[in-house]
Amino acid sequence: MSSNVLPRKVRVVEVGPRDGLQNESEIIATAAKIQFIELLNQAGFATIEVTSFVSPRAIPQLADAAQVYSAVTRRPGTTYPVLVPNRQGMERALAAGVRAIAVFTAASEAFTQANIHMTIAESIAAFTPVMEMARAEGVSVRGYISTAFGCPYQGVVAPESVVDVAQQLLDLGVDELSIGDTIGVATPNQVMDLVPRLASIADLDRLALHFHDTRGTALANVLAGLEQGITIFDSAAGGAGGCPYAPGAAGNLATEDLLYMLHGMGIATGIDLDAVVAASRYLAPHLSRPLTSKYLRAVSATH
Amino acid sequence: MSSNVLPRKVRVVEVGPRDGLQNESEIIATAAKIQFIELLNQAGFATIEVTSFVSPRAIPQLADAAQVYSAVTRRPGTTYPVLVPNRQGMERALAAGVRAIAVFTAASEAFTQANIHMTIAESIAAFTPVMEMARAEGVSVRGYISTAFGCPYQGVVAPESVVDVAQQLLDLGVDELSIGDTIGVATPNQVMDLVPRLASIADLDRLALHFHDTRGTALANVLAGLEQGITIFDSAAGGAGGCPYAPGAAGNLATEDLLYMLHGMGIATGIDLDAVVAASRYLAPHLSRPLTSKYLRAVSATH
Repeated sequence: MSSNVLPRKVRVVEVGPRDGLQNESEIIATAAKIQFIELLNQAGFATIEVTSFVSPRAIPQLADAAQVYSAVTRRPGTTYPVLVPNRQGMERALAAGVRAIAVFTAASEAFTQANIHMTIAESIAAFTPVMEMARAEGVSVRGYISTAFGCPYQGVVAPESVVDVAQQLLDLGVDELSIGDTIGVATPNQVMDLVPRLASIADLDRLALHFHDTRGTALANVLAGLEQGITIFDSAAGGAGGCPYAPGAAGNLATEDLLYMLHGMGIATGIDLDAVVAASRYLAPHLSRPLTSKYLRAVSATH
Repeated sequence: MSSNVLPRKVRVVEVGPRDGLQNESEIIATAAKIQFIELLNQAGFATIEVTSFVSPRAIPQLADAAQVYSAVTRRPGTTYPVLVPNRQGMERALAAGVRAIAVFTAASEAFTQANIHMTIAESIAAFTPVMEMARAEGVSVRGYISTAFGCPYQGVVAPESVVDVAQQLLDLGVDELSIGDTIGVATPNQVMDLVPRLASIADLDRLALHFHDTRGTALANVLAGLEQGITIFDSAAGGAGGCPYAPGAAGNLATEDLLYMLHGMGIATGIDLDAVVAASRYLAPHLSRPLTSKYLRAVSATH
């Protein structure tokens, strides 16, 4: 294995404003969210997932989705997807002018049952009308597959289940798939096993990996993904978000840690790491727990 | 790259009692150190670096080296090396009955100058008599090469410098080399570049990698090392030790995080991860800062 087989360019999808803030316990002021996203905008991301049009009763942290979405400066070359769980959410999203959405299901039946009280098939049926609306409006769609490497309820998740769900989402017309290690249990051998299976049903440039760093393995999993030709990785500034299944533990892979590794490896992202640090430093005082990014802590200790 | 080319067995060298405790600010009671090492002993490590026979004036945290070394239960199959900086230290170590030592230098002139006020050549000259004493007594010797991936003073460290120092240590008769990322700046491409260079002058089974997780890249670097055939990795229970060059940031790779990844990959270590967690939990209240192991935090949040 030598570094010349690795991708030379990677797209980092910043999910902090959505996946990060939806899993922090406090409700952050709308103006602070907008400023956080503006600072991320200045870092040069090609994709920032800015919010979720979920039911405000289910996730009060993101009840201001339309307000946040509308306030974000549209930077040329950047896409601002939002999460959409159902038809009502899609109607709100379209009314706000959304041009890119994400839908979600999981690879574990136990997880969809516990999390959204549906079978996987029911969850896919629930967003089928959303997909039709998206197609009619020319809105791009990303499909999240949660618990692809392990489930807090059923434990092991077979790679065959991930491929099966992925195929269903592709058949429905998703443009991109994001394969998530929701509880941060994955190890690199799982990535080495799963990615080739997925690559047999979808082009590599439509596959994203979404790791959580709950047990410290996220960057090793990213390396395994890079070695398999993956060029899209999700992360959250500062590591915002925590792990809802292990309160106090780390959740989302920190964007800073991901960028530090990629840039160190000579892999271009187009993103200014210092500007991400600035965004995380802006966010930090709005949260009740410290951000988990190791890079952020290292630069904060020496500067 | 498929997982069947990876090693099936790895030796983890637990350095917490030495590299961890020497870099914590508090002086821990001798009895607590001994109990910490006993708990590590129960986890089944083949190698535990238990202390350093440095000058007590230089590192008061380890002034009780002889007392700690003598109290440790000798478990069959386990080696208990100690760090030895010079002839005086070696005399004390031999008097205590030590059978395995480690000596240290660095790949960066700026680092040895700042850290031990010597050139690299002078540092090697300083432990040459130690090596002779070791050979005469049949004591095994590990050679540490610090700042092999970057230096807090000079920045970049050329891989050629690491190979040059490694060759000198091999010529002096060290049994094993441990290549250290002292400030936790390494990225996997550096490992992919450096290991083959070292493998051209030493058998792979004499090469250990010693990563710090200051910027979160340690396990990705371990994966790169595994893929290059490395089978010896250093780590510290709980991530004890911090980073002396970035106070508040992470230092040593946590043994728990390393074991979680290795075991998840089906790579045998012979070590009981739960028993390491127990050792870290014993140590934690003796330290003024929280341990940094992400695995430890995850299990502590859910148990």
